[in-house]
Amino acid sequence: MKKYLVYPFSVVFILFIQNAFAQTSSSPIGFTGDHGEQQLLLEKQFDTALQTKDIDSWMKRISAYPHHVGSLYDKANALFIDSLFKSWGYETQIDTYYVLFPTPKIRQLELVSPTKYQAVLMEKIIPDDPYTAQTKLQLPPYNAYSADGDVTADLVYVNYGIPEDYKRLEEMGVSVKGKIVIVKYGHSWRGIKPRLAYEHGAVGCIIYSDPADNGYGAGDVYPEGAYKNAYAVQRGSVMNITIHPGDPLTPGYGATKDAKRLNIHETGVIKKIPVLPISYHDAQPLLAALGGPVAPGTWVGGLPVTYHVGPGPAKVHLKLAFNWDTKPVYDVIATLKGSEYPDEWILRGNHEDAWVNGASDPVSGLVSELSEAKSIGDLIKNGWKPKRTIKYCVWDGEEPGLLGSTEWVEDHTKELKEHAVAYINSDNNERGFLYVGGSHTLEKFFTQVAFSVKDPEKGISVGQRRLDAASLKEGKPVTDFHIDALGSGSDYTPFLQHLGIASMDLGFGGEGEGGEYHTDYDDYIDFTRFKDPGFHYEKALAEVAGISVLRLANADILPFDFTHFYKTVDGYVNEVQQLANTMREKTQFQNQMIKDSIYEKVEDPLKTFVVPEKQTAIPFFNFAPLQNAMITLQQSADAYANMFKTLEEHPDENAIRKINNMVYKSEQYLISAEGLPGRPWYKHLIYAPGFYTGYGVKTIPGVREAIEQRQFDEVDPQIELLSKTLLDFSNYVKRMVKEKK
Amino acid sequence: MKKYLVYPFSVVFILFIQNAFAQTSSSPIGFTGDHGEQQLLLEKQFDTALQTKDIDSWMKRISAYPHHVGSLYDKANALFIDSLFKSWGYETQIDTYYVLFPTPKIRQLELVSPTKYQAVLMEKIIPDDPYTAQTKLQLPPYNAYSADGDVTADLVYVNYGIPEDYKRLEEMGVSVKGKIVIVKYGHSWRGIKPRLAYEHGAVGCIIYSDPADNGYGAGDVYPEGAYKNAYAVQRGSVMNITIHPGDPLTPGYGATKDAKRLNIHETGVIKKIPVLPISYHDAQPLLAALGGPVAPGTWVGGLPVTYHVGPGPAKVHLKLAFNWDTKPVYDVIATLKGSEYPDEWILRGNHEDAWVNGASDPVSGLVSELSEAKSIGDLIKNGWKPKRTIKYCVWDGEEPGLLGSTEWVEDHTKELKEHAVAYINSDNNERGFLYVGGSHTLEKFFTQVAFSVKDPEKGISVGQRRLDAASLKEGKPVTDFHIDALGSGSDYTPFLQHLGIASMDLGFGGEGEGGEYHTDYDDYIDFTRFKDPGFHYEKALAEVAGISVLRLANADILPFDFTHFYKTVDGYVNEVQQLANTMREKTQFQNQMIKDSIYEKVEDPLKTFVVPEKQTAIPFFNFAPLQNAMITLQQSADAYANMFKTLEEHPDENAIRKINNMVYKSEQYLISAEGLPGRPWYKHLIYAPGFYTGYGVKTIPGVREAIEQRQFDEVDPQIELLSKTLLDFSNYVKRMVKEKK
Repeated sequence: MKKYLVYPFSVVFILFIQNAFAQTSSSPIGFTGDHGEQQLLLEKQFDTALQTKDIDSWMKRISAYPHHVGSLYDKANALFIDSLFKSWGYETQIDTYYVLFPTPKIRQLELVSPTKYQAVLMEKIIPDDPYTAQTKLQLPPYNAYSADGDVTADLVYVNYGIPEDYKRLEEMGVSVKGKIVIVKYGHSWRGIKPRLAYEHGAVGCIIYSDPADNGYGAGDVYPEGAYKNAYAVQRGSVMNITIHPGDPLTPGYGATKDAKRLNIHETGVIKKIPVLPISYHDAQPLLAALGGPVAPGTWVGGLPVTYHVGPGPAKVHLKLAFNWDTKPVYDVIATLKGSEYPDEWILRGNHEDAWVNGASDPVSGLVSELSEAKSIGDLIKNGWKPKRTIKYCVWDGEEPGLLGSTEWVEDHTKELKEHAVAYINSDNNERGFLYVGGSHTLEKFFTQVAFSVKDPEKGISVGQRRLDAASLKEGKPVTDFHIDALGSGSDYTPFLQHLGIASMDLGFGGEGEGGEYHTDYDDYIDFTRFKDPGFHYEKALAEVAGISVLRLANADILPFDFTHFYKTVDGYVNEVQQLANTMREKTQFQNQMIKDSIYEKVEDPLKTFVVPEKQTAIPFFNFAPLQNAMITLQQSADAYANMFKTLEEHPDENAIRKINNMVYKSEQYLISAEGLPGRPWYKHLIYAPGFYTGYGVKTIPGVREAIEQRQFDEVDPQIELLSKTLLDFSNYVKRMVKEKK
Repeated sequence: MKKYLVYPFSVVFILFIQNAFAQTSSSPIGFTGDHGEQQLLLEKQFDTALQTKDIDSWMKRISAYPHHVGSLYDKANALFIDSLFKSWGYETQIDTYYVLFPTPKIRQLELVSPTKYQAVLMEKIIPDDPYTAQTKLQLPPYNAYSADGDVTADLVYVNYGIPEDYKRLEEMGVSVKGKIVIVKYGHSWRGIKPRLAYEHGAVGCIIYSDPADNGYGAGDVYPEGAYKNAYAVQRGSVMNITIHPGDPLTPGYGATKDAKRLNIHETGVIKKIPVLPISYHDAQPLLAALGGPVAPGTWVGGLPVTYHVGPGPAKVHLKLAFNWDTKPVYDVIATLKGSEYPDEWILRGNHEDAWVNGASDPVSGLVSELSEAKSIGDLIKNGWKPKRTIKYCVWDGEEPGLLGSTEWVEDHTKELKEHAVAYINSDNNERGFLYVGGSHTLEKFFTQVAFSVKDPEKGISVGQRRLDAASLKEGKPVTDFHIDALGSGSDYTPFLQHLGIASMDLGFGGEGEGGEYHTDYDDYIDFTRFKDPGFHYEKALAEVAGISVLRLANADILPFDFTHFYKTVDGYVNEVQQLANTMREKTQFQNQMIKDSIYEKVEDPLKTFVVPEKQTAIPFFNFAPLQNAMITLQQSADAYANMFKTLEEHPDENAIRKINNMVYKSEQYLISAEGLPGRPWYKHLIYAPGFYTGYGVKTIPGVREAIEQRQFDEVDPQIELLSKTLLDFSNYVKRMVKEKK
């Protein structure tokens, strides 16, 4: 029942502290009067309470055993985490959903000719790493949401299996129709690989990790070093999350116990062909047995064989069968009620479920979240109260396809649309540089956060270190801090791209080493050797995310800004116009080359080269509505910025209350009811995962993908839709400006 | 005693032929009246007599046994070739020089700790390739002009051993001082690698061919495919040819029997440390035993090990001793005397000596030369006579360091300066695209040749096919045919860069496959499987080179042009100005980064990173004299072009004779008596092999290398020298224009 400690401090002491911060921190955006200084003191207290020893012990505990969806330890972790939150003063609940989660029953892969080889399909136990010996508790290597299947066919090597690889195969006269493809991890999200293989007629798909990418070609291998040894296999989901994430059987609504479920054959997100991930130990005999053309130079990996494309003479037999069970996922939701705006929610989340022990993915991010929550709990115990409600969420079932977060969001759509101010996500974390992706309406806000947290290795701010690294990399001074646009691959997706809730995804990376991702040696021993031995960057993540939460929760005026958003979107608009022009010129040129038989005149007659078909010429598109909308957006953004500045300097309680209540819903004006073409679940018109990149983002996706995928009839309608949406958005911003008048 | 067959042809027939050529060939430059049509008919005859069966049988014979300098078969080849020329009606002579040519006595390499390994140092005999079994006649793998030495030291892996690799090593805090380096073939001429190693303090150098570059990473290996198997080793010279080529003991003058010779310790072109080339079979245990930092990602090759940099714990013992013998080289010179201008010589050359059997290098180019010579011999037998003297040269001792050609050029300096119109070189050849490097005063001339020879695979001209390939590669239409600037690596160097004789180097390539270069499987079997099974491109080379010879020999007005030269040099001048600006900005930026401690703020504290030293700021240079000289050059080139056109249309015998006698000496105005800084043997101020690239060219080398090597005090003097030289050259061109008036 103590009051919050800040208030009793003397003014002198406050001034002293203020001076100490003056070098690095200005008053946080959206705080009026002396609230900014109070906030900085609060953050100092928050910061002091963060303890790497907590982080260490929680990681050890949570990653002690495999804790995938449906496992005993997954549930045990939910209960443990729930108890932690309770002990820190949070109201908690565990929301349970029931999701389709396949696990392997049969996994079989053989080379049947011209030589024989039976794939091992198991990772090796490492004597010095007892976690790797928990074999009975582990899910073996597999790709969740592969089809059941039993196929025997010639093999074709398709490099990374991205669209340009299939184009190259066509030029070589190689078809994958009726074949099994072997494809490398990397350069696209794994779920895209079997989809493209299927679209090109393949009957099976084998995915392997090439040693050049994160085996011995990248560094010493586990356990001597951090990279993939010959037997390590990356597990992972191949659900079509670019159609929609979440439970395949309950698209768009919560997978509650009694929810109506689709028949398994009605979903559009389960793969149509069997897919299996393998190690490079298992891949080598298969690749060595391939004939046909030698693979193009850029397709060559790190195995000591000549990479051939096939098809055959390597013929493989792939047999997979799965238990198509329904399993519970447990989302832990811990709430601190806001004192002033209880109906405005600041959400913070990280998932708990892992493919195996998951020390890095996801526990390294989860322990940061717990650390924040505990420290905020301490503030509460000392009498402080947030103005807005804070919700700490720990998601289950992220790995199979953002199941826990998506079902929860779908189940709480109405409340979230009304109450959610912003969602802050994290996932795996390690030593290195600050990464942040998110809504550009929060870029200005987050930049200030990034410059007020110290890098644990260097003492400068994490924001400055990131800029310094960019300067060295680009060879010229980089002074503007930007946040990236978000694609998918973690739990922000349902918030941002389904509901239009402003979101951020945070983490550190670039100095940790390893090929442990989704293997059985992503464990405490590996993490503390190679990812972040002292847990300093898990503490730094807790600072960055925690300060973000505290500022959003406490701001007098919510720190949204539209000028950064305008500039960013303006960049995207220029990009897509450039894209159309470049593609138009390229198409013209290539059609001319085809017409003039230039390929025939140039290509080596001793090698097969199939001249590509002429492509439809690219028409000119009407970008005018979008260009006009951008002018309106700029004007409204400028007007809002002026209004915001005035309001910060001369607070007007009434206007602030109205604007606060409106501004956080602005992002919802960027979603369209009908969603993106062919995938209506994705409704955000500025950010989406690429249909053919997976995790990789496509900005202004409706327009961009219509051009990229040569759906030229769709381009003008998508420009219209985007323009109208941006105008609606701008008008909403203008309405807020009027509230002040 | 027959007269040349063209003249009896009826005019009607001539017109018919002319029409047939009208699509592809216009009248050759420099031919007046109906001489152009006569020339085209002559070329047709020349062309018809070229026979791939001759080419085949000569290749088989000349490459039947190893024929390196000093071998029995090297001399036998000279005698055989001499007899061929004689049989075709040429006056021949064999000019013999006596050169220092070391051969191995002791070759020993062991890994002595932490594990033991004795290097094999021998190539494997291939059962289906009897040439590879001629072991007793072969020189084993070695680098000629390595030092004798017996060293034991820790190993350091230095990637390709180019300057930027040593910069990266410094940043990693790794020194090669007192160490033995292991370096990959590629990205610089092999002789540069031990020189840079020595300059950085290394005591020994091992060079190996990484399988990623031309072993199994490039394609199937010999004998299944064309690429290097595990035991193949690239031999080669490591003489400092960028100082001067030719016999180390007689720099600048002919190595005749009684020439005064330097003591072996007085030469500047023999390596100071022992150097040995090895296979990737022998390299793998050495690399696997290295510790220290993991090599940067771009340094990783194709062996199934993690590439570490060292130094140590791998320690190796390298022991080499050589027979430092003097050996004869036999240059075969075959002459057809000119009927009208006997004192104007058209020179054509290719070398004969090989490291082993050398079917590709050099016999594939040599057989083209022989085929031309035979066909021209037929023309002679039919009564035709060239206006100018033609000299077919077959060089010995090219492989060790352009010994035969350089000694011959040095021994005939006076006559060559007086009589040599142009030198046309070739070397190894294979299926593919026309390559041509040379003097840009011949670019316009040669472009016409390239467009009048048909590609044997495609029927279009070899010039057009090259442009088409460039269009596809660059993704935009390429319409201008350019010839490359020449660095070094074949026998044009003494002609062009020592004496200033306009030169061209010709060949086809890009469709042959292989890692046979300087190994014991560069033989007839390999060539006919992988390089050019039907010898069609050796015939095409004979056409291109032969037509060049015939046009130069027969032209009424020698087809030199200065507008292409002006444009090309103008490009170089712009490049070096841009280079200075870019380097200046980069230096400023990097010095600022160092001053602001940005590296310290960014680099991973768990890895060694040594911040580079600040560099001297780059001053602004006075390019005005050069810019002014370029204006004069442009004016004189334009005036010459106008004069040339008038003379072609209205021939003036007297003016033509005077201009012919002057124009071919114009290239000599591009050489400077003092030569390039630090290497006076190289006198051409437009083209030179790069001091740190070897074969790779540096254009306007005095200025460019002064900037690149940060010898800033030398830049303005080099600009002055170049400007004065270009003015002298322009004035000489102007004097020719006056001859017409």
